[in-house]
Amino acid sequence: MRSEELHETLLPKRLALPIFASDPLSSVAYATQEILLVLTLGGLAYLHFTPWIAAAVVALMTVVVLSYRQVVHAYPSGGGSYEVASTNLGASAGLVVAASLLVDYVMTVAVSVASGVDNIISAMPSLADHRVGMAIGFVALLTGANLRGTRESGRAFAVPTYLFITSVLIMVGTGLFRYLLGDAPVAESAAYGVEAEPADAGLAGFALVMLCLRAFSSGCTALTGVEAISNGVPAFRKPKSKNAATTMAVMGTIAVVMFVGVTTMALVAKVHITEDPCRLTGLEGDCSSYTQRTVIAQLASSVFGGESSFGFYFVQAATALVLILAANTAFNGFPLLSSILAQHRYLPRQLHNRGDRLAFSNGILALAITAGLLLWFYKANVTNLIHLYILGVFTSFTLSQTGMVRHWNRELRSPQTPPEVRRRAQVTRVINALGAMVTGLVLVIVLATKFTQGAWLAVVAAIVLWVTMRGIRRHYDATAAELAVTDPHAELTRPSRVVAIVLVSTIHKPTLRALAYARAFRPDQLEALTVAVDRDETSALQRQWEELDTDVPLKVIDSPYREITRPVVEYIRSIRRSSPREVVGVFIPEYVVGHWWEQLLHNQSALWLKSRLLFTPGVMVTSVPWQLASSARADHPAARAPGAARRGEPVPHRPSGPPLAKPKDSPHD
Amino acid sequence: MRSEELHETLLPKRLALPIFASDPLSSVAYATQEILLVLTLGGLAYLHFTPWIAAAVVALMTVVVLSYRQVVHAYPSGGGSYEVASTNLGASAGLVVAASLLVDYVMTVAVSVASGVDNIISAMPSLADHRVGMAIGFVALLTGANLRGTRESGRAFAVPTYLFITSVLIMVGTGLFRYLLGDAPVAESAAYGVEAEPADAGLAGFALVMLCLRAFSSGCTALTGVEAISNGVPAFRKPKSKNAATTMAVMGTIAVVMFVGVTTMALVAKVHITEDPCRLTGLEGDCSSYTQRTVIAQLASSVFGGESSFGFYFVQAATALVLILAANTAFNGFPLLSSILAQHRYLPRQLHNRGDRLAFSNGILALAITAGLLLWFYKANVTNLIHLYILGVFTSFTLSQTGMVRHWNRELRSPQTPPEVRRRAQVTRVINALGAMVTGLVLVIVLATKFTQGAWLAVVAAIVLWVTMRGIRRHYDATAAELAVTDPHAELTRPSRVVAIVLVSTIHKPTLRALAYARAFRPDQLEALTVAVDRDETSALQRQWEELDTDVPLKVIDSPYREITRPVVEYIRSIRRSSPREVVGVFIPEYVVGHWWEQLLHNQSALWLKSRLLFTPGVMVTSVPWQLASSARADHPAARAPGAARRGEPVPHRPSGPPLAKPKDSPHD
Repeated sequence: MRSEELHETLLPKRLALPIFASDPLSSVAYATQEILLVLTLGGLAYLHFTPWIAAAVVALMTVVVLSYRQVVHAYPSGGGSYEVASTNLGASAGLVVAASLLVDYVMTVAVSVASGVDNIISAMPSLADHRVGMAIGFVALLTGANLRGTRESGRAFAVPTYLFITSVLIMVGTGLFRYLLGDAPVAESAAYGVEAEPADAGLAGFALVMLCLRAFSSGCTALTGVEAISNGVPAFRKPKSKNAATTMAVMGTIAVVMFVGVTTMALVAKVHITEDPCRLTGLEGDCSSYTQRTVIAQLASSVFGGESSFGFYFVQAATALVLILAANTAFNGFPLLSSILAQHRYLPRQLHNRGDRLAFSNGILALAITAGLLLWFYKANVTNLIHLYILGVFTSFTLSQTGMVRHWNRELRSPQTPPEVRRRAQVTRVINALGAMVTGLVLVIVLATKFTQGAWLAVVAAIVLWVTMRGIRRHYDATAAELAVTDPHAELTRPSRVVAIVLVSTIHKPTLRALAYARAFRPDQLEALTVAVDRDETSALQRQWEELDTDVPLKVIDSPYREITRPVVEYIRSIRRSSPREVVGVFIPEYVVGHWWEQLLHNQSALWLKSRLLFTPGVMVTSVPWQLASSARADHPAARAPGAARRGEPVPHRPSGPPLAKPKDSPHD
Repeated sequence: MRSEELHETLLPKRLALPIFASDPLSSVAYATQEILLVLTLGGLAYLHFTPWIAAAVVALMTVVVLSYRQVVHAYPSGGGSYEVASTNLGASAGLVVAASLLVDYVMTVAVSVASGVDNIISAMPSLADHRVGMAIGFVALLTGANLRGTRESGRAFAVPTYLFITSVLIMVGTGLFRYLLGDAPVAESAAYGVEAEPADAGLAGFALVMLCLRAFSSGCTALTGVEAISNGVPAFRKPKSKNAATTMAVMGTIAVVMFVGVTTMALVAKVHITEDPCRLTGLEGDCSSYTQRTVIAQLASSVFGGESSFGFYFVQAATALVLILAANTAFNGFPLLSSILAQHRYLPRQLHNRGDRLAFSNGILALAITAGLLLWFYKANVTNLIHLYILGVFTSFTLSQTGMVRHWNRELRSPQTPPEVRRRAQVTRVINALGAMVTGLVLVIVLATKFTQGAWLAVVAAIVLWVTMRGIRRHYDATAAELAVTDPHAELTRPSRVVAIVLVSTIHKPTLRALAYARAFRPDQLEALTVAVDRDETSALQRQWEELDTDVPLKVIDSPYREITRPVVEYIRSIRRSSPREVVGVFIPEYVVGHWWEQLLHNQSALWLKSRLLFTPGVMVTSVPWQLASSARADHPAARAPGAARRGEPVPHRPSGPPLAKPKDSPHD
């Protein structure tokens, strides 16, 4: 896409909603289930806490959506939490958000795919043995699609997301309608009892509160992905902020309605689900091979009349599809965030360019491999993976809301702020402060209840990322300081003399070309240089050289230890020592070949010599290529074919930012 | 070692013998055993064929030693079978020998280490469970020692080899003496019977002959390594050929005496050994966990009075040690042969230099990994590994002896050959012809009896090597033809004009240095070039450029797709198109950093651009390095420390050959 075209692909709200909301909406598919799984650790007795926990999640969701609507208005450039935190709380805090989000993108892929596979297995139980294989297969599929560069198409996202919303709402509506008519749907697991885990039976006081908090932590997965819209403001049609805020409100409302609906129906239909199917009582047959269906599947089956009904399959297909799409959003978000971080020099510069498919591909592969390993290690078990999730989400919520409070404090301190703005700022500051406190509290709860269950791994990963990114930034800063121009006049001064040295090992066309090119530069002094490792070969070379009858002398340097690089480097250093204001240009004849295996057969020593010469001050190294016939083939696709440059070409400059998020006023750049 | 010093380390015969003979002599440790193992497939009944088979092996050994003495005289340069075959039978035949030998070096390591471990386990049966681990451990140990560059020291080889010879001869002598006194030693397995394999019981006619031929094939392992001396002639003191021939005769005599002695004692002491211990009858306890001792161990134990006698441990220690040393010879021979093949351009050129530790290390690692995999796959079982062995040895025997016959034919055809030489040539031609026929026959026998038992793998490996090496040679030949100088005058003609282009992305010290250096060359035309990927950044750059106030114009080229390489390459092609006799020099500012991870953070795009520019005709690419402070550290060890160049420095030239083998009159070079 040409740079100019990027600005023409702005999104109407009806497309922006499914594009940015497939992740948060899809979490409805597992949030209720995760709450139930924790509560049934203590048997069926604690299920009556479900409404309260769900209410807490809804309240939290409301606060977070309201808070983020303020972010959308205040930071329309799309930097999201990262920008808010780094602008208001400093670079280190911003980097904490960035590291958390990078970890969370990985978890989004893992959890969404695992849950998608869960719902497929619920529809086709015979696939239960292939859980991990299917999960990794989906990751591979997404990787392949993204590596090939399929751009997210609005329409392709819109259809499944709307299908999912519609089907879940119809399911909930039908179920409630039947309930009101006195024909409440009954889940297949309603008849089963659940034995409490010995450790969690008959809890009271603090222990009971902790169990409820664990259930609440798990339910908070419903909030993952909420901030996606705040990253995407620049992609909205004008007025961007207003449209984005509206979309966010719509998204929040739909998510709350779906979550409440599913949770209510799960209680109405008496879905009894547990982490370990062997704790189910009244089960016929072998419990260890029994696969419990997901909550969504049990509801769909009970509402629409069994596992062969059209409605059941429809709900399952829509659910699985939207979950896979949610995983795909991470495949877009991860390289995008990497590119912003690279622009701020926290990641290698070459990751910056969005058009740079090579760097982009590296990001996609890193994401896919990490997610694949997690799926393999945790056997694609949603519940186990959930423990690593949401920690990053709430870190980023808390820091960005705190940042927003600072933002309003600053606005309010400024005497230029007009009174009507001042009034609004005071209100939104309260909202953001509430958001910061609530999400901070949830962060503490999540840490306390999940740390030992696996969340420590996410914490360690985020810390490692944070330290690495700071190190990279420090390196770039040090380099920039070292390279800054201090005295342009002195630095532009031409060296007094140029000595050109052509390296000769045998006399063939590449050598002669190197000699001819070196002469074309008219250096102050020109000589050919060879290293004598074999007496016979060297004297043969000297004879041939004389026959050539050029005006260029052939200098022979001895190499008692039969090496090449060291004598050459030392010879050049000696020239520089005797006249430091001279500069030495070393001309190296090189063959250019067409295949990587041909490269293995040639130029190894030239490469090594070049790399050593570059360490020598006052030297420039000129490669004089000789293109062998086979090189023409290799040259063709990459340098001439019209679409070629888009495949695998890194780009050195800092180009225009990615279309969806360029923090124009970032403090780091 | 300096080139001159290499000529001073010549070997006296008493050191040459153990250095070159540890491989052939050590095979005595398993040759007898392998004969017995095949014969007992048909029960104890066939053991009476043992003397006949041993006699055949001795006869074969005599013929081969006599034949190779002729090789030593005729080809004193040390090229061995490879040189003889390629000189007399053509390059393809020589390459067959080379491929076979490379495979055989791998098998020498695997078989010798496996047999060494076998003998250690015979002394300490509690180690039986760690067979594979120990074998791979020894390979790792040898790899480490050889990677560190421990040179084979004559003395270190001499002691264990002479200990082995002495201890085996004393053992055989003592045993025979006791036999003559009527107190014949009795092996621990003498009391056991052996059940025949159903398929091999009561054989007659052709089947019986085949079984004996299989036993003979296995016994031929005694001949492995015989040709080592013919590769080492240049390392002998003068008169080289005569000394080498004498050493070979001594070696052959010792090997025959030891082999005959061990085989006789095995029959006298009634060693009953079988591939599958569960075919032993009269065994107490669980047969599957019973570990049979090696023939050497059973003999030593019975002769010296049990498994706790000093003599027993001494023989086992000497045997194990000499076998590990035999494996070590392959670690020297494999890179040596690779280096000769590289000199003949059948392998990548950089393998050629013996002083080149990097290439040398690759050879050692390739050898170790292949041998390790074989040991792991075949569970360090000597018998299974033996099937892959000796095929290569006899291929090389047959071809080199055939080559010798041709050699004498040519000598005899030449009218200049003096009569006394002519007479000797006629005699030795008979010897070599006999050698060729006999070894050819054995080759057929080995192929027929071992192919399906695993030898096919060795054949496939040799064929793959052969095809690869021919491909490499063909590539080098084609390249050399393409690069040969045809019209030196035209090729040396200076281009009409030089256009220098300095690539600029930002203005910092490296850019200014590149500009200053480019100006120092006084090109006919000089311009700075930048690619506009971001409008704001480009105009900022243009402003800074004007402030610099140089006489060099800054050319800006557009890049609508935000790439760098393609616009630059196309711009340069356009210059060349408009004036084809001009040459374009592209100057690229580069940072030089000290750590590999710093390299990841810089220069990626410059590298890519350089590699693409090299494909463009009429272009030379100059790297103007800017050494960052961190680069000084990295420069220090590799370019200045005295021993550094020996660590990891490839060398482009063809240097003087390795000390032990340089075929001076090779037809390929």
